[in-house]
Amino acid sequence: MSKTELKDEGNPWTLLGSNVMYDNPWIHVRQDDVLDPSGKKTIYGVVSAKHLAIGILPLDDEYNTWLVGQYRYPLGKYSWEIVEGGGKFDVDPIESGKRELLEETGITATDWQHLMTIHTSNCIADETAHLYVAKGLTFGESQPDSNEKLQVAKVPFKEVYEMVLDGRITDSMSVVTILRAHALMQEGKL
Amino acid sequence: MSKTELKDEGNPWTLLGSNVMYDNPWIHVRQDDVLDPSGKKTIYGVVSAKHLAIGILPLDDEYNTWLVGQYRYPLGKYSWEIVEGGGKFDVDPIESGKRELLEETGITATDWQHLMTIHTSNCIADETAHLYVAKGLTFGESQPDSNEKLQVAKVPFKEVYEMVLDGRITDSMSVVTILRAHALMQEGKL
Repeated sequence: MSKTELKDEGNPWTLLGSNVMYDNPWIHVRQDDVLDPSGKKTIYGVVSAKHLAIGILPLDDEYNTWLVGQYRYPLGKYSWEIVEGGGKFDVDPIESGKRELLEETGITATDWQHLMTIHTSNCIADETAHLYVAKGLTFGESQPDSNEKLQVAKVPFKEVYEMVLDGRITDSMSVVTILRAHALMQEGKL
Repeated sequence: MSKTELKDEGNPWTLLGSNVMYDNPWIHVRQDDVLDPSGKKTIYGVVSAKHLAIGILPLDDEYNTWLVGQYRYPLGKYSWEIVEGGGKFDVDPIESGKRELLEETGITATDWQHLMTIHTSNCIADETAHLYVAKGLTFGESQPDSNEKLQVAKVPFKEVYEMVLDGRITDSMSVVTILRAHALMQEGKL
């Protein structure tokens, strides 16, 4: 129980008008004309994600997991990550996670545990990410999208944790999931 | 030491052309015409952040920290977070962090420890966040930007950790910082 009372305050911004600045199948960018919290007239450019972000840490009985490696175009860098994908807003994110895990790794899992839901970049965007651990694994053939070029690697979880600590894994969804999973393991809860 | 060899591969995308779709003082949005990894012609909309993101967890000798509450306009939600701000790319992020901590909380700190650097949303944006713990605190007057409307609350770190676990804190930079700081405390290293 929290002893500190933290009261949320309301919205101190006033919306005056809004214009679509960019739109594609994945993101929508609008510019709002607003009065800021001090009452000054200004603008706010808002990026909306058109999908839920979903991250999955599959975990077998020997505490191995599967990482996905891919070139992340916006960063211009290669990145090793947990299994990630997008889900439709009207689909249960666990169902989208099951589809993504199967496509990218060929794994199906019977035991899905929600770890955390985060907002990845709340100053710029509204993107929401749901993060899971998946256990009870069965292995089949991966079914990658033909337009993706992924590597999949089986890695002991303790090595993956080291990759977070030494900066080889930097993706926020992966970092949160791996840090939280490690804490649960330390507490004997995972 | 990692025993698993994970080889980064190169860039499988081919850039054909690029157009600026939106620009304001904080973000830049471009649409690239590309060949995707399968060779198919398509587009990629990339959001670039014009500042480094910087997050600071101030910590006093009794393991209290200071949270900042504010309405996050892109989310349309009130959010409690560690101290956060933007830094210029050509300024040492610790110097930007010192300025931000002073402005928002009135705190100066002598001992800055880099915890982690993350990419907040690497499928959409190139935003990079540097995360710190700041100790050796001295307290003065905050100097908030007149256009911000912030609450600042002193909270025991163990309550802040509970706020992450129960979903009251969802901001990715805050979640990563608090989870990592907690692990370091458990190991007697913070």
